[in-house]
Amino acid sequence: MQMVDYNVPRGKLNRGISVIDSYKLLFGGKELSDEEFFLASALGWCIEWLQAYLLVLDDIEDNSHLRRGQPCWFRLPQIGMVAVNDGIVLRNHICRILKNHFRGKPYYVDLLDLFNEVEFQTISGQMIDLITTLDGEEGEKDLSKYSLPLHRRIVQFKTSYYSFYLPVACALLMAGENLENHIDVKNTLVDMGIYYQVQDDYLDSFGDPEVVGKVGTDIEDFKCSWLVVKALECCNDEQKKLLYENYGKADQACVAKVKELYNTLDLQAVFTQYESESHEKLIKSIEAHPSKAVQAVLKSFLAKIYKRQK
Amino acid sequence: MQMVDYNVPRGKLNRGISVIDSYKLLFGGKELSDEEFFLASALGWCIEWLQAYLLVLDDIEDNSHLRRGQPCWFRLPQIGMVAVNDGIVLRNHICRILKNHFRGKPYYVDLLDLFNEVEFQTISGQMIDLITTLDGEEGEKDLSKYSLPLHRRIVQFKTSYYSFYLPVACALLMAGENLENHIDVKNTLVDMGIYYQVQDDYLDSFGDPEVVGKVGTDIEDFKCSWLVVKALECCNDEQKKLLYENYGKADQACVAKVKELYNTLDLQAVFTQYESESHEKLIKSIEAHPSKAVQAVLKSFLAKIYKRQK
Repeated sequence: MQMVDYNVPRGKLNRGISVIDSYKLLFGGKELSDEEFFLASALGWCIEWLQAYLLVLDDIEDNSHLRRGQPCWFRLPQIGMVAVNDGIVLRNHICRILKNHFRGKPYYVDLLDLFNEVEFQTISGQMIDLITTLDGEEGEKDLSKYSLPLHRRIVQFKTSYYSFYLPVACALLMAGENLENHIDVKNTLVDMGIYYQVQDDYLDSFGDPEVVGKVGTDIEDFKCSWLVVKALECCNDEQKKLLYENYGKADQACVAKVKELYNTLDLQAVFTQYESESHEKLIKSIEAHPSKAVQAVLKSFLAKIYKRQK
Repeated sequence: MQMVDYNVPRGKLNRGISVIDSYKLLFGGKELSDEEFFLASALGWCIEWLQAYLLVLDDIEDNSHLRRGQPCWFRLPQIGMVAVNDGIVLRNHICRILKNHFRGKPYYVDLLDLFNEVEFQTISGQMIDLITTLDGEEGEKDLSKYSLPLHRRIVQFKTSYYSFYLPVACALLMAGENLENHIDVKNTLVDMGIYYQVQDDYLDSFGDPEVVGKVGTDIEDFKCSWLVVKALECCNDEQKKLLYENYGKADQACVAKVKELYNTLDLQAVFTQYESESHEKLIKSIEAHPSKAVQAVLKSFLAKIYKRQK
């Protein structure tokens, strides 16, 4: 099916592969049996299908143009709003994969609940994001709504749960664990997801487009980015006026003024400090965990993203 | 939440109420306990939320204007494509209702599977419908694709499962039944749903708009209606040419020509015959069922729709 080939592959597969890696580490890095490898891969693909579904619909909601280096699915001439149903078709395949391969497992119902819960958290995050970025009654944009707690709330719901918690939770269920006993693992992974998104926000303005693989547009798009939130936190009245006048405008002169202010406020240094503090906190909360195997899973996640340049 | 108030109520609640009615009839019409009534109502509302979700997204896909006597949700000035996420939010509430009220029930996992399966059937039907109605490569409309088997396939998947099978299946699960033992019930309800949709197609052209509550536009919209399929079946070459030239055009003169042809071919009589034959077949398959209680459920469904004028 062309629609599946277009939308499911071509990502980095980080989330999917994490299920296999995590499951291995939960058993001290042992070699997996063919069945274990197959089942962990199936769960990994469920997360990739979930991601594909979310991206197809998000691109419609955000009126985006490009995704993974090609036009967004709904932009293709023969597709248009049929893409809404296509997105839903992708979502429905998760349940079909789960039913085909896990119906007889004791943790089947927990898998269904997990995917349902994480999907709800993600779309709730998207909802908060949409409401925040939406223009007000008179179509005006309002920077005064942006704050660190709001940024954190959007990222936690929209990204952390499905990108960081979900792969590990899948591995834990396959290993026979009860997720209610792993609230601390969830909290640590949510924090890691927030750290990951702050990096993303930082790279959008300060990363090398050649390395990152795209040219950032958070400033033009009036995004509730960690950078603008930090800028609002530490600027004086005059600088705040500059932000209000130039943030969220397509005009490249406005974008340049905002970037100049980011430099004046030395947000690079603020980010470097945030990065090392976050890392330290995360390591501390990981090492507080009673299980060495769980520690290994979490540390492997953190190692993959710490000080990433892309 | 305004979005829920706008999209969930104002339907006829037929599907939701059917769960309660069916459950009662399965026990010989007994009075329900408060808990039974509450749970059956909760399942009924799940179907209404499913319906709301499907309609919000269908309206976007079909570029519709009105729904239940008010503008479609996505047409409201402040909404637009945010409606896609809103639709998904509605869908996600089904799982939340199920989890809140049925997590401990022995049939919880069957309920999840049932809603997942029926949703997949419905969106598959919508997909076939969209692909069929979609213009071809050169943007031309092609009537030659339309046939009775295609009409049946679209209706079976897009409407029958969720509108007719789902309420009864919910009641059966609540009554402790295994749905695998009720394939015949499913088949009968699917046939009833097809009969219902044929009525709908008929009323679109031949019903009294005052009674039906809306002015039909199937001819303008190039719908794969039972009427056009029947017309294609029994027309001569000249009449076929007229259909090809006038079906699917917004011009009211074209619509009038198609309606005139429907009259010439006496599709009213063809429909009346279809209606009595369908009724007879349905009664026969109902009375073949070993359980009198199940027969009562099915007959009550049929009585609600037989010879309806709206």
